[in-house]
Amino acid sequence: MNGYAADSWTDRVPVEELRARWQHLQKAMAAVGLEAAVVMQNADLYYFSGTLQSGVLYIPVEGDPLYAVRRDVCRARRESYVPSIVPFRSFRELPGIVADHGLPRVERVGMELDVLPVATFQRVSHALGDPHVEDLTPLVRSLRSVKSAWELERMRQAGRQLDESWRLATQMACEGLSDLDLAVALEGLARRRGHPGYARMRAFNGEVAMGLVLAGADGAASSFRNTPLGGAGLHPSVGFGPSGRRLRPGQPVTVDLIGFYNGYLADQTRTLALGYLDEPLCRAYEAMCQIQDLLKKSALPGVAWGQLYDDCCRLASELGYARHFMGQEGSQVSFIGHGIGLEIDEYPFIARGFRDQVLRENMTFAFEPKAVFPGQGAVGIENTFVVTAAGVEPLTLSDETLCIL
Amino acid sequence: MNGYAADSWTDRVPVEELRARWQHLQKAMAAVGLEAAVVMQNADLYYFSGTLQSGVLYIPVEGDPLYAVRRDVCRARRESYVPSIVPFRSFRELPGIVADHGLPRVERVGMELDVLPVATFQRVSHALGDPHVEDLTPLVRSLRSVKSAWELERMRQAGRQLDESWRLATQMACEGLSDLDLAVALEGLARRRGHPGYARMRAFNGEVAMGLVLAGADGAASSFRNTPLGGAGLHPSVGFGPSGRRLRPGQPVTVDLIGFYNGYLADQTRTLALGYLDEPLCRAYEAMCQIQDLLKKSALPGVAWGQLYDDCCRLASELGYARHFMGQEGSQVSFIGHGIGLEIDEYPFIARGFRDQVLRENMTFAFEPKAVFPGQGAVGIENTFVVTAAGVEPLTLSDETLCIL
Repeated sequence: MNGYAADSWTDRVPVEELRARWQHLQKAMAAVGLEAAVVMQNADLYYFSGTLQSGVLYIPVEGDPLYAVRRDVCRARRESYVPSIVPFRSFRELPGIVADHGLPRVERVGMELDVLPVATFQRVSHALGDPHVEDLTPLVRSLRSVKSAWELERMRQAGRQLDESWRLATQMACEGLSDLDLAVALEGLARRRGHPGYARMRAFNGEVAMGLVLAGADGAASSFRNTPLGGAGLHPSVGFGPSGRRLRPGQPVTVDLIGFYNGYLADQTRTLALGYLDEPLCRAYEAMCQIQDLLKKSALPGVAWGQLYDDCCRLASELGYARHFMGQEGSQVSFIGHGIGLEIDEYPFIARGFRDQVLRENMTFAFEPKAVFPGQGAVGIENTFVVTAAGVEPLTLSDETLCIL
Repeated sequence: MNGYAADSWTDRVPVEELRARWQHLQKAMAAVGLEAAVVMQNADLYYFSGTLQSGVLYIPVEGDPLYAVRRDVCRARRESYVPSIVPFRSFRELPGIVADHGLPRVERVGMELDVLPVATFQRVSHALGDPHVEDLTPLVRSLRSVKSAWELERMRQAGRQLDESWRLATQMACEGLSDLDLAVALEGLARRRGHPGYARMRAFNGEVAMGLVLAGADGAASSFRNTPLGGAGLHPSVGFGPSGRRLRPGQPVTVDLIGFYNGYLADQTRTLALGYLDEPLCRAYEAMCQIQDLLKKSALPGVAWGQLYDDCCRLASELGYARHFMGQEGSQVSFIGHGIGLEIDEYPFIARGFRDQVLRENMTFAFEPKAVFPGQGAVGIENTFVVTAAGVEPLTLSDETLCIL
């Protein structure tokens, strides 16, 4: 339209994808008696519209969605296949816009209560006439957890991006190089392959870097983030990630990166060391791979998320890693895997509890058994998997051998 | 403690800074009848505690704060001068923790309602016995908008980081280089100078890159973000920023970067072109500098934020840029400046409305007059200023000449 690059985008979310998503959501809404869904959060907007334009995507339980866009309406129309895209400035206009499209006034509405700020929620809810509001998020998360073939192909591309980054890490790693310099090189490569420099996370206060390159003892530093490895970070105002520590022989280096391809993520961790790694750390690495083997054998459709977690934790204990598994003792996290797709913290959670929620075909998750040794660092492995009828299939492909350079 | 880099951090938020912040907040709380503040958002946590550890910072209207930390308690104790730091796992423990510290049960509590998700708010509020809750955010924003000398020094460092980045941009820019490759180089430099790769933003759905390097017509692309320039971005799932477009002679390139130094930000934009820039764009650049001159003359303590906005908009119109100022026609934003410090969207807003809120000494804001020409791109300038009794003083220092290379 104005000669900028958006005109040539070819990888829009196809209209058939969108239609299938709307229909699945509407079926789930009908089952719990919701008359409309009000979608406002970026990842959910992108999932249901194919664009990120700010506004309200209003999905009635029957019929096509209506997208009220604050900015940018032109981009929304060019990027999204939602049939009705209308400009608006204030939430107060919503009831009129809804009525103009022949949609009925509703009394039971779903909204994203896990992410919507209180003040925003109050304004939207009031504008809609203070209907009864229920949390839409469990429905959306459940729906988004099962990927289409189209989505899986984009996650595979993110996996290929990660393999290229890992290969660069093995080429660059050398004594004296800092964790930060290595991270910067890997970030630059990923950026040139289409990574925007961040990844989306749903959790409040979630701060996500492109990855964690952690060297030596830093690998054992826990952080404010709910992750097995945190890293010291550059400063207390950052609080995780590389610290500027230099790579030294005999110390483990974990390269935990998030790939991003056209909105979709993949998550992979590999471990390397310069020259050698002491036998106990090598054995721990092998133990983490054994835990991954157990996951591969047992992660079938129908298995409860929490069952997988318990079984893998039990194996970690049997192998002697109870005090090292998934974090420093006292700061261990209560999960081993997390769903992944448009966000880094999707369903399923391979985590403590969750006895009633089961794996389903085409769910995707990252599984990251890691062992932490205070004063020495961390070793472990992480891959992103898709659940198939026959078991899990990896979407991340890098060589899994402990990499001694 | 475990031999990682955090042990050597020397730039913690000093205890005197923290005490002054607590006292200012408590005074503001007393004035509106709040008995306690519950602080949970990252930037606010850092401001009032000096660390980012996840949990609840409970600030009574009298006495020292109490920091209930979920993770990581050891790091909180090492990084923060809050005197009472206690571990907790569930919000349900909060009343007991508060009582154990001899603090009274409260009935009027302030919470960050602009950022707290509904579900989180409901859990915390319920755990505290469903007190009357008011929005704490205006108090916190007002307090945070006025910087101490200690804070200003960190923002000056962020400004120096930006100058180094801009110099690199002028050295690298050449025909055929892509906006993305230039951005990656600037990002890498900033990362090696301590930039974590992201900047904090308070707004819901706020997505922030390290900066915007926009070439030619892309400079005119508006986006879902509430910013004058957006950029096409690499894909609809990204929606802003560089697009991969190559630099060509005669096209404006805007280099809009956020510096980050130990938590504190600075924001700067400069414009360059290869070989030449057509006279109308050169004139527009000069006009934006004239608007900055007006700001410099009029931004004194006591002046209303909205007054500055109106005056600058009027000048933009008089100079002939009504349809170009602050965005593409139809997508123009209603601000020219934004407060900055730990977050990119702090008070004050140099924006439409805001007739009752006035500049105060030691407020800091970025001021970014920009002109957009569909099909051609954008030109403009941005500096970060601190308000002094004698007028504004820049914290960003790069040469302001339109850079023709």
